[in-house]
Parts: sequence; structure tokens; C-alpha cells
Amino acid sequence: MLGVALDGDGGVLAEHRIASPQGLTGVARAIDAVFDELDARVPGAGAVGVGIAGLVDFDGRMRYGPNLPDVIALPIRERMEATTGAPVHVDNDANAAGFGEARYGAARGSSHVLLVTLGTGIGGAIIAGGDVYRGANGFAAEVGHFTVDRSGPMCACGERGHWEAIASGTALARMGAEAVTEGKGAGIAFAAAGASVTGHHVADAARAGDHDAAEVLRAFADNVALGLAGLANIVDPELIVIAGGLVELGALLFDPLRAAFAAHLEGLDYRPAIRVVPAALGERAGAVGAAAQARALLR
Amino acid sequence: MLGVALDGDGGVLAEHRIASPQGLTGVARAIDAVFDELDARVPGAGAVGVGIAGLVDFDGRMRYGPNLPDVIALPIRERMEATTGAPVHVDNDANAAGFGEARYGAARGSSHVLLVTLGTGIGGAIIAGGDVYRGANGFAAEVGHFTVDRSGPMCACGERGHWEAIASGTALARMGAEAVTEGKGAGIAFAAAGASVTGHHVADAARAGDHDAAEVLRAFADNVALGLAGLANIVDPELIVIAGGLVELGALLFDPLRAAFAAHLEGLDYRPAIRVVPAALGERAGAVGAAAQARALLR
Repeated sequence: MLGVALDGDGGVLAEHRIASPQGLTGVARAIDAVFDELDARVPGAGAVGVGIAGLVDFDGRMRYGPNLPDVIALPIRERMEATTGAPVHVDNDANAAGFGEARYGAARGSSHVLLVTLGTGIGGAIIAGGDVYRGANGFAAEVGHFTVDRSGPMCACGERGHWEAIASGTALARMGAEAVTEGKGAGIAFAAAGASVTGHHVADAARAGDHDAAEVLRAFADNVALGLAGLANIVDPELIVIAGGLVELGALLFDPLRAAFAAHLEGLDYRPAIRVVPAALGERAGAVGAAAQARALLR
Repeated sequence: MLGVALDGDGGVLAEHRIASPQGLTGVARAIDAVFDELDARVPGAGAVGVGIAGLVDFDGRMRYGPNLPDVIALPIRERMEATTGAPVHVDNDANAAGFGEARYGAARGSSHVLLVTLGTGIGGAIIAGGDVYRGANGFAAEVGHFTVDRSGPMCACGERGHWEAIASGTALARMGAEAVTEGKGAGIAFAAAGASVTGHHVADAARAGDHDAAEVLRAFADNVALGLAGLANIVDPELIVIAGGLVELGALLFDPLRAAFAAHLEGLDYRPAIRVVPAALGERAGAVGAAAQARALLR
């Protein structure tokens, strides 16, 4: 869990990170602890923003998230307002990252943007007219959880073949491990050196010239592109920003991804190009965006 | 192609229908012909609205549509403004239907709505804050064209396993015909009486108590629900309106559809219920909505 203290121009005055907390009480206390540390270093926050994975309603309650079991109906805004005395904005973490990229990052100046976070899971944000589109209840852009391959692998949420199950960092690691099992991953196995295969091992092997690893990345990029092309038809963005840990793969991901996206997009020749770019704020996008969303309360 | 003359309260003063035109010139002339006939019967239109399948940009140009081959870059607004002298609004036909249902139909009073037309193909509209969400270029809510079953049947647009390829009326007819081929469709074959199987034959057989036909409808409803559940996670609507020819199936479709939607929706127990209801304006929704969108130009 990462927190930042932000100045009026989007500059980071301080940051504090703690290990991912577990359970309802753990998450609630971790939010308090991150705030307390930042408040000690940069006292007098004018407003406080929180971004958290899952369904966050307009009352600032985290209702439910497939990747945070036991965290049900946590009233984050109510708790934070009581303890800080400041106005508090709570949103889904990917929505916060989308707002951060729109205000200070790769989506600056763009009006309609789809942000997708590719990490352990997949999150998303729809920026419409320059602001976060939250839908009827604040739950919009849960883009990891739509079916892309109905006979594909099981998703963390219990549904089969969701996009997250084939296009997240977890999926890339599984695909790398499968290649090893199938005897097509000598380079990947070498990179993993006996440890469990991760996406980084696949990338390391591909960088070292291993063709099998490059093929895994190409298949993975096709999985990502398949979902992006569908989302483009639903959301019609002018720009797609990719955030999350997998951005570190750089051209190893973005080159095959852009090619596959062009191949899958409906009406490619008859519409303005949709650029696919990496996030500019890196892993801080969510924290910076949450703080920026909070500051917007003060306007 | 259906046109209506609409009064100030959404009442239909006249309507005119012509057979589906073909090709660029055919479509352009058919729009003119429908307008001319209505203008002769209810002269002096204050504004003119057109809804057409495919990607329609903010200049009222139909750019491209997978179901209307040869209709490329048709400048509908420019042509209609020149010939009618009235302000003209052009949008995707499903967007127009969504606007119609929001203004006069099943979505009246709802702020965030997903409308899906199930007919020969699948169209969609996203109503956000009471108005049509059109995205960066006007192409949003092309909801038939996202991948749901990547190893499934080919879509009309050339991609494999799009939602339209498994959840449209065309798909239901194919599933009925497949059941017959597999020897599990005696009741469906009886209903078809030697003709090509359609969705109506499947419905007729199910109504007559045929279990195989009911099973085809259940599998079809699951296909529809799989897409709806994904779209609900992306769009977060408070209400889903089903329009198009398949609405005529009534409870034969809606009963298994609602059950399957509840089974596939993420976080069902932790979010407000999303109702799934039939459109109220029937096949006129698109024409009424296009006219209502045009009248909004006069405000």
C-alpha cells in the first residue's frame, strides 16, 4: 500500500509504503497507518484521497473486491473523515490511477481515455470528458472481469475465462510455467533458476533471445489486445494508457500488443487511430491520482 | 428502414417503412425516400434525426458498419441538411433507440442505462447521466463486437467469438439448426416444417413443450447473460433494457436470461440489483429516439 503527500502542482512531497495488508481490520488499520506517517512528515492535509481495489460506492464504502477477500462494506470515507477532520474522497484504485494519468501523466490533454492496469490482476478506468466515469453506483470500469475466453482458465473471482485470467501478470507467469512444462521453455526455466516462473523470467528469457519466451509474450500480448479491442468498441477512447507492473516489459510487451490491437480492432481503417501508451506516473499513479481527486473536493 | 413523424410529446403522427436498402447509393436514397413520404404527410419538420447501424461520427457521417458493406463515409447530416433545410442529428441506430427508451420508454427516469438490441446482429447504447454516451468519436457502445468466446463461431465482422456471433437472433437460429443436425431438435424441425430454422421456430417448439428447444433457449440465454454481466462490470448500469426482435420471445428468453445474468454478475450480493427489462417502444424505439434526438437540437 502506497501513500503520497501531494503539493498543489502534483509534486510528491513525501511517500510511504507498507506491505499489502490482509483482511478487513488489516486494510482499515493500514490506511490509518499510511495517513499517520505522511501526516507526521507533511502535517495539515487539506483533503485525503484513497484508492482501493474493488467496488467502491459513492459513499466511499469499499463494498466488495474479488482480490481482497473478507474486506466487505468497509466505510473508508466515514472512518477517515472522523479521524482526520478533512474531506475524504474514496474511489477504486484504477479510477484513481486514471485520474492521476489524466491530470499529470500520459493522458494529460485527452478527453476520452481508457486506462488499464496490468498487474497481479487487471483494473481499469474510463475517463470521459476529462473526468472519471463511475456509472450508476461507482462500480464502472471493472474491466478485468468480462468474459473473453469462456472455455479458458478460471479467474480469481470464480468465473471462467475473464480477461484478468488470461491477460494479467498472474496469467503471464502461468503461461511461462506452462511453456516450461510443455518442454518449450528452456530459456524461461534458465531465467527462473529453480524459482517459480514469473513474468519477469519470461521477459528476461525473451531479452536473451529465447524464441519460445518471445512466443509466450506474443501470445500474451494477443490476450491483452483481444480485451483492449473489445473495450475500444464499448468505450471509444482516443487513447489507451497501460499502467501496472507489466509496463516494465517495455517494447517486449508494447510492440506485439500494438500489432495485435490493430489486428483485432473493428473498423481500423475507418476511424482515427487509438494510441496505446505506457502510464507516465508508474506505480505512483494510483496514489497521486487519489490525492488529486481529494484536492478536487476543495475547489 | 422505418421512419416516424413525432409530435412534441413523443406521439407518432405518421410512420413509413421501406425494405432494407443495399449499398451506398441505396441507403442514401432510402433515407431521402422515407423523409419525403413523411414530409408529404406531416409537412414542415422542425428537425430531422437519423439512426443507422455502424460507426457514426460527430459530423453525422456513417463511417463504417460491419453489417452494411459498401456503406463507407456516407455524409448523412450534410446531405439531409442540404435537402431539408432543417437541423439534422445522426447517430448509431442503437444509440437512437437508447435515447428513445430513456425519454419515452422503459428507461424513463433512470440515469445510467445499458440498452442492448438483440436482432440479426447486436447493437447497444450507454445512457450516462440521462444522455447518450458517445465516446471520443461517436463510436461507443458497439457492444456486439467484443470477444466472449475466442474459440467460438465467426462474427459477421470477421473476428472470432464476438458476442454478436453467439447471442444475436442469427446465433439463436444457428443453435436451433445445430440441434436439428445433432438429432436433438425434432420439435424444432417440426416447427420449421422444412424451412430454414429461425429463432421463432425454436421458440414455437419450446412453447409446445419441447425440452430440446427449451435447452437451446437456455444455452442461448446464457450466451446473452455472459455478455451482459461483462458489460455491467464495465458500464455499471442501474438498468439493462433489451430491445430488438428477440424481445418477442418474452418469458422464454427473460426467465433464463435473468437467472444466468445473476449467476455471472460479479459481486451480486454486494451491489444494488440491476434489473433486466424489455424495451417499451418495440421496433419503433430507434425511429422515435432519432426524432427525439433531433428535437433536442431545437432547445
